[in-house]
Amino acid sequence: MMITSTQNPKIRWVRSLQVRGRVRREEGVFVVEGVRLTEEALRAGWTARLVLHSSEVSSRGAAVVEGFAGRGAPVELVTELVLRAASDTQSPQGVLAVLEMQTRPLPDVLDFVLVADGVRDPGNLGTILRTAAAAGAQAVLLPPGAVDAYAPKVVRAGMGAHFRLAVVQMTWDEIKAVLRPIDRPALRIYLADAGEGQPYTQADLRQPVALVVGGEAVGAGSEASRLGEARLHIPMPGGMESLNAGVAAAILLFEVVRQRAGYNPDPPMAVTSSS
Amino acid sequence: MMITSTQNPKIRWVRSLQVRGRVRREEGVFVVEGVRLTEEALRAGWTARLVLHSSEVSSRGAAVVEGFAGRGAPVELVTELVLRAASDTQSPQGVLAVLEMQTRPLPDVLDFVLVADGVRDPGNLGTILRTAAAAGAQAVLLPPGAVDAYAPKVVRAGMGAHFRLAVVQMTWDEIKAVLRPIDRPALRIYLADAGEGQPYTQADLRQPVALVVGGEAVGAGSEASRLGEARLHIPMPGGMESLNAGVAAAILLFEVVRQRAGYNPDPPMAVTSSS
Repeated sequence: MMITSTQNPKIRWVRSLQVRGRVRREEGVFVVEGVRLTEEALRAGWTARLVLHSSEVSSRGAAVVEGFAGRGAPVELVTELVLRAASDTQSPQGVLAVLEMQTRPLPDVLDFVLVADGVRDPGNLGTILRTAAAAGAQAVLLPPGAVDAYAPKVVRAGMGAHFRLAVVQMTWDEIKAVLRPIDRPALRIYLADAGEGQPYTQADLRQPVALVVGGEAVGAGSEASRLGEARLHIPMPGGMESLNAGVAAAILLFEVVRQRAGYNPDPPMAVTSSS
Repeated sequence: MMITSTQNPKIRWVRSLQVRGRVRREEGVFVVEGVRLTEEALRAGWTARLVLHSSEVSSRGAAVVEGFAGRGAPVELVTELVLRAASDTQSPQGVLAVLEMQTRPLPDVLDFVLVADGVRDPGNLGTILRTAAAAGAQAVLLPPGAVDAYAPKVVRAGMGAHFRLAVVQMTWDEIKAVLRPIDRPALRIYLADAGEGQPYTQADLRQPVALVVGGEAVGAGSEASRLGEARLHIPMPGGMESLNAGVAAAILLFEVVRQRAGYNPDPPMAVTSSS
């Protein structure tokens, strides 16, 4: 039976999950759209509470739908119009899944964590999650005041980061307990600061670190300031006031990668091309 | 005389500049809003074709309006409602200016240039300009296909970058002529690539370089591929498919800064904090 009405209760439920953070939190589910993201979710073993697909789905997308069905997920065929009504985007690529939130447990030993404080723009938070996942960070901790990490735009901009690293909304006390455990060595906590502190390339980021980056509008809040033991700044020869929060996070995260990989820090001086 | 009607021809003109790239290009002007950006434009010596202000403006904003008036710019007092009608934002902070596009001449000797290819998202392009300005790049060259660099969202996200570095929309032939001048040494042109080429930290970025970064949806186009002499990639230990274009640009731009500043490449191993 194909769902042909946008007023079908299941479709209305999906739409409420798209627009209401409270409903997502109460039911412990969120929505992912498109072939790439649903495929990543399937591969990472996440549980779907509902999968919608239309006849427009590609064969790759159809394989994702089958994969979820094989694990016992309820699957519904819907018209393209109904799918678009349930979707947060213009082109959901024929497939959409309602997934159970599954907070990945934090690794026992933490050595590379990002705390993103007060990031209110969904695209910005999604980009930060994507960058952190690419850098191989173990977790992104989100103190109160950030945008909902499961909002549709965050999930989309995250490009699968949600399935690859722990994304955890926590109180400041919980964050403190995680970064300074009683029974294990604490991580070194660095607060990114627009103007003060050590240049980031001079800090030793090979040791276990937590990087605290402030949101775009307000900078790091006072709780973040209290948490950070040391301040880092990114020298800006061009003299702008500050960097976008996602950009600052990216530069710091990939400096950790650079230092830990032990890339050749002083490349040989190449001959300038004259072609 | 205060302008009290949103249908006033000047207000309609400003609104057309906000929404129509063609009108901006034909008239050679664009709009900046808010105290910070208009102040930067004034300080950088840009010419205003029109300045609008309301009684809501702060004293700092009023000084900006006076500054432009002192240079002979037409200034109009408008109601808050009219200002909001002329504005692209919810809170224009009481001041808005129509500026003459003033392409800063490229420096005679180029050694640090970014080519941003096919960036279609305004916020993303603005962030790239902001980051390039912060890194001290001399110019951002924009081949055909990018979003208009003078669109309101780009200007806003640029946070003043337009007044600090050369932002130039060019054909690929013009870009080639600039990066490979006949009478001077060429710059080394590096194409950022998601998977191929030398790890970016191993390239010598102290020599004069142009970094070519591809847009978020399509990657670098074929013209860009032909231009790039060598490929760079950013190793991603977390194994994501790619990075956001603005993030990739930021990591590369600040690697140039790091290498040229000669920051201590191997920080001493610090003692892990146990507080």
